[in-house]
Amino acid sequence: MSVNSFGRVLRVTTWGESHGPAIGVVVDGCPPGLKLSEADIQPWLDRRRPGSSRHTTQRREPDRVRILSGTFEGRTTGTPISLVIDNVDARSKDYKEIAGAYRPGHADYVYEAKYGLRDWRGGGRSSARETAMRVAAGAVARLIVPELSILGYLVELGGDPIDRGAFDPAASSSNPFFSPDARAAERWAERVDEARKDGNSLGAVVECVVSGMPAGWGAPVYAKLDGDLAGALMSINAVKGVEIGEGFAAARGTGREAADEMRSGADGRPLFLANHAGGVLGGISTGQDLIVRAAFKPTSSIASPLRSVDRSGAEVEVRTTGRHDPCVGIRGVPVVEAMVALTLADHKLLHRAQCG
Amino acid sequence: MSVNSFGRVLRVTTWGESHGPAIGVVVDGCPPGLKLSEADIQPWLDRRRPGSSRHTTQRREPDRVRILSGTFEGRTTGTPISLVIDNVDARSKDYKEIAGAYRPGHADYVYEAKYGLRDWRGGGRSSARETAMRVAAGAVARLIVPELSILGYLVELGGDPIDRGAFDPAASSSNPFFSPDARAAERWAERVDEARKDGNSLGAVVECVVSGMPAGWGAPVYAKLDGDLAGALMSINAVKGVEIGEGFAAARGTGREAADEMRSGADGRPLFLANHAGGVLGGISTGQDLIVRAAFKPTSSIASPLRSVDRSGAEVEVRTTGRHDPCVGIRGVPVVEAMVALTLADHKLLHRAQCG
Amino acid sequence: MSVNSFGRVLRVTTWGESHGPAIGVVVDGCPPGLKLSEADIQPWLDRRRPGSSRHTTQRREPDRVRILSGTFEGRTTGTPISLVIDNVDARSKDYKEIAGAYRPGHADYVYEAKYGLRDWRGGGRSSARETAMRVAAGAVARLIVPELSILGYLVELGGDPIDRGAFDPAASSSNPFFSPDARAAERWAERVDEARKDGNSLGAVVECVVSGMPAGWGAPVYAKLDGDLAGALMSINAVKGVEIGEGFAAARGTGREAADEMRSGADGRPLFLANHAGGVLGGISTGQDLIVRAAFKPTSSIASPLRSVDRSGAEVEVRTTGRHDPCVGIRGVPVVEAMVALTLADHKLLHRAQCG
Amino acid sequence: MSVNSFGRVLRVTTWGESHGPAIGVVVDGCPPGLKLSEADIQPWLDRRRPGSSRHTTQRREPDRVRILSGTFEGRTTGTPISLVIDNVDARSKDYKEIAGAYRPGHADYVYEAKYGLRDWRGGGRSSARETAMRVAAGAVARLIVPELSILGYLVELGGDPIDRGAFDPAASSSNPFFSPDARAAERWAERVDEARKDGNSLGAVVECVVSGMPAGWGAPVYAKLDGDLAGALMSINAVKGVEIGEGFAAARGTGREAADEMRSGADGRPLFLANHAGGVLGGISTGQDLIVRAAFKPTSSIASPLRSVDRSGAEVEVRTTGRHDPCVGIRGVPVVEAMVALTLADHKLLHRAQCG
Repeated sequence: MSVNSFGRVLRVTTWGESHGPAIGVVVDGCPPGLKLSEADIQPWLDRRRPGSSRHTTQRREPDRVRILSGTFEGRTTGTPISLVIDNVDARSKDYKEIAGAYRPGHADYVYEAKYGLRDWRGGGRSSARETAMRVAAGAVARLIVPELSILGYLVELGGDPIDRGAFDPAASSSNPFFSPDARAAERWAERVDEARKDGNSLGAVVECVVSGMPAGWGAPVYAKLDGDLAGALMSINAVKGVEIGEGFAAARGTGREAADEMRSGADGRPLFLANHAGGVLGGISTGQDLIVRAAFKPTSSIASPLRSVDRSGAEVEVRTTGRHDPCVGIRGVPVVEAMVALTLADHKLLHRAQCG
Repeated sequence: MSVNSFGRVLRVTTWGESHGPAIGVVVDGCPPGLKLSEADIQPWLDRRRPGSSRHTTQRREPDRVRILSGTFEGRTTGTPISLVIDNVDARSKDYKEIAGAYRPGHADYVYEAKYGLRDWRGGGRSSARETAMRVAAGAVARLIVPELSILGYLVELGGDPIDRGAFDPAASSSNPFFSPDARAAERWAERVDEARKDGNSLGAVVECVVSGMPAGWGAPVYAKLDGDLAGALMSINAVKGVEIGEGFAAARGTGREAADEMRSGADGRPLFLANHAGGVLGGISTGQDLIVRAAFKPTSSIASPLRSVDRSGAEVEVRTTGRHDPCVGIRGVPVVEAMVALTLADHKLLHRAQCG
Repeated sequence: MSVNSFGRVLRVTTWGESHGPAIGVVVDGCPPGLKLSEADIQPWLDRRRPGSSRHTTQRREPDRVRILSGTFEGRTTGTPISLVIDNVDARSKDYKEIAGAYRPGHADYVYEAKYGLRDWRGGGRSSARETAMRVAAGAVARLIVPELSILGYLVELGGDPIDRGAFDPAASSSNPFFSPDARAAERWAERVDEARKDGNSLGAVVECVVSGMPAGWGAPVYAKLDGDLAGALMSINAVKGVEIGEGFAAARGTGREAADEMRSGADGRPLFLANHAGGVLGGISTGQDLIVRAAFKPTSSIASPLRSVDRSGAEVEVRTTGRHDPCVGIRGVPVVEAMVALTLADHKLLHRAQCG
Repeated sequence: MSVNSFGRVLRVTTWGESHGPAIGVVVDGCPPGLKLSEADIQPWLDRRRPGSSRHTTQRREPDRVRILSGTFEGRTTGTPISLVIDNVDARSKDYKEIAGAYRPGHADYVYEAKYGLRDWRGGGRSSARETAMRVAAGAVARLIVPELSILGYLVELGGDPIDRGAFDPAASSSNPFFSPDARAAERWAERVDEARKDGNSLGAVVECVVSGMPAGWGAPVYAKLDGDLAGALMSINAVKGVEIGEGFAAARGTGREAADEMRSGADGRPLFLANHAGGVLGGISTGQDLIVRAAFKPTSSIASPLRSVDRSGAEVEVRTTGRHDPCVGIRGVPVVEAMVALTLADHKLLHRAQCG
């Protein structure tokens, strides 16, 4: 019941602060015998790494992951896998000025309200830096579900959506926005540049699609696949909304429109004529593509002055001068993928436990 | 790790099928000494009860709850509270025809894909009847958080939203739609009548606001208050989307707009100038009102014929003739409230465990 | 994390007080498709039932179990199995006199110290009546591990041990003491009669052996098979000690004596030349017989007067006049078996989750 | 539900292999604001450290603990505390010869039976080296229960018990055996020297007493204080038996003898006239001293040749030439104390959650 752990059978526990000596994750319950080395994890971290384009924070973290336990001769042994990344570019002095003041939109005030004290350096534990370990753990999770293809991308930035007609999955890895629509990426580049110059920031919507899903994963009623995914995605920094399939749009349609009718499939399984439900019914996967979306609010750290108070209750003006992403949703893509991978790997094992 | 349990310190476990002899819930971890009798639970069940207006299912369930354990002389003892409701109006024969066929939008196919068999009577475990026990448990949870006011209502039905300017919380309990806008309720009555006559159904969006919140509840990073709420709401039948505060709309705004700025409050605590975040930052409550929304898809059980397959893989046409809600979102209101109450009561106790 | 739940993947939650309307258990995580009816459970309850010989309490409880959920057409469906037994012979008036006084050796005082109030009727939740539901759940667990033979018996009563040379497993079901040594049973009958007449009670040691064990169950390091068994057995009312294999005797031997040496087995697996370890090494089953023992203290409810205090702190004399077992260890046998069955079934599923 | 985690509200997760780069623990749920630095942990590790006398293994591990997260300016912040110890004296080559053979009494065979492969270097995950992290976590737990005095010591070595009449708690820290009886320590020194020279090893019994206990900790029925303690102690390497209070001796007495009678105490609380129960009734602390014992089997690694098999099934002779404790029970003392501290700290918080 660790509040810093996630999952049921595959269980990950993260630790670490933004400006402490290191951050890490322990992955427990991983099946034995899987090939695993740092090289299986690093590419996913690189994908998330700050400083890879001018559109993300200029903090330079090589984010080199080390495996400290759980493998032997290049294979998982079934014991806990400990992954660690040293914090090497932590400029705490950037944060001195906000040591006593609460940044609006950040967890500064609530951490202090809860715990009575806080590590203010870079947001401490509440920093999005923690998500690096989700990505590292997600890389391990992917090895448990090799049958799946898990792809995340941005479908909207600053309220400007992609053109679904121009959707090209391959495109999403060739622009700094994980955009499956190359034209949208060009527009977004301008938007983000503008926002940064203006001391402002933008929100975004990340979508993640999983293909290769079997039918039958998920466990009603309080470990539903969609319930667990919603909890997983909402736990990501800055996420304020989660949808499965048509999500909120489904609430505006009718039952006749929303029905995913079926015909006989070639393989004896039903052939679904639509996928409004996003691949989950009654909390269990249908075997169709799984489709989820997460709404990221605009980065709270902006260079514009904002009204706030300090620890003494005095009124102050806060302006965040550190190195920040103008749109955290962009780097949210690999994090969403990781949380989806962790949730699915966990449910694969959980399903195997009960149903063999 | 029971998949039919919810919560961490306050832990509820539900059981029962739609057409079995009874349904029930065990509430464990409840503080001792609270006044509790059936009379504290029944009103909330009555609020959710089917058959209370022509706009909901005509199944007649008195839904009389009995307390079988955990109280003594009218007070909770700290031991598990067992609540049971007998199923008295279970007409299984209504369902005979779908014993072998999979209803589109329902869990019929996936239960069989997962478990190899299913109790097809009324949807068995996947029936929304299970939510009655959430409401019963939620009534107990409310006793643990008497400092809170938890109010749910419909903000949209069939894509037709309420007028926020006409918002009247009191109105929500005086129309069959839990609508805080009396005019909207009138329009919705027509919409729902139409849909029913047309063998169709409608979706809805439920909002729930909690006032009286202290700052400091919630536990980063995988037991965040918003993460747990998202998981809780998405686990409700027919819910396909969840939002906290501005939710998806936040993704379309800018950081400057989204900032909940602060000034010195009268009581030494910050006075927030806005509540875009919905009362949660970094997974911890800010002390502002908590605001969540859940999108309910249209009822999947409709009288119109839909294409499907049966257990043998043969193509069939399914038409659901049982007694069904034309809009499950309506009766979703007390269920959303219950899940919010359970989540908050749990977090109150969890916070007390760590922080005293 | 319900404190009234046991197990990880197979998870049971019990509820109910000795003199409330009923007691029950919810078994979650059971694999689907197993044949299960009341007839599969009742024989195990009958084995534990009070009033079956003059050596156990004369409370007359038919202990008829009812299945309220989780099965369909005689098979488990994978959903929670709710089992209930009505309390029909609950004479609360027997307990009126101890409503305000604390019985030595009982949980009366500590429940009040913890919760501030208690259901004093028959011990309420702390009564051994709760163990009936362990036996019921254990009957379900046995269906999950049909490959195992799980046999419990008494090896010592009032300090008088069985003759290991006369060990006959069949004998254990033909005397009221579950004694595998018929001569010991005769001696024990006299001892127990004497104790009862004398207003006294006796302790006992229960042993349980499981054959048919595969190698590989158990999960280091905090879900070790022996660790989980120890917790399971120590949670049984009146148990004060637990041993695996040679237990405390092992602490008195040498490493050379304690070694379970190996030779090549016919089936490619090692042939162990001894089983000092009791079938568990490093928390994982070796494939040998599993051997555990639990020490039961003498029944605390005795007819002799004992010095105590009441709720006001005044000094009183307590004498328990209800209907009690002179040796609770006897009826502890089916309870030990049940806890062993639950632990092993859980570990079978947990092993399958991680290792396939 | 991580199988490498322990505790409910205070939750520790250990990781690491004997000869990997490091071992570590993550302590989650620790209350904020406690003073904590490496200096609070190191003394407890030094107490357990190998190589501190000729009676324990000569492996030279400085066991320097580092805190990588969870503190700020010398105080706990409420976020996960990550503790790491580098493995600096890991001579894997000592183990090459047993890479393919199974050491009797060790987990070699079962790890391979379970996982299909194993890290054979020094026993990998099954090494008692893991217990160093229990001791480190226990040091944190002690800060949560400053009201308690937790003292462990040896009461028996190689079947030779201490003289209870000569019991002197202070003595236990002035001899290498944690013996509270100085004369016994002298005898044991000879016994252990003899065993080592003879290529043999000895078992021991560790007792732990906790004073300062409040009444009311523990949570029936599956989180009983004694049940959790039993699971905690049995999870320690080489432990084969656990007792609370009189333990197995209680099974040999009568109910009249075993009764812990009560008189009015000076403070309004009962004054217990005896403590046969070891400070726990019905799974809840009575406020008396808590008394537990754990039986350690003799070290399985001995220099004498033992019959075994190798991975291919061929018969071999194994002789363990590494640096080993002739009696693991000795160094078990700080480990038992740590597990007791962790269990009690967890229950303090759990009690606070439910009962305020």
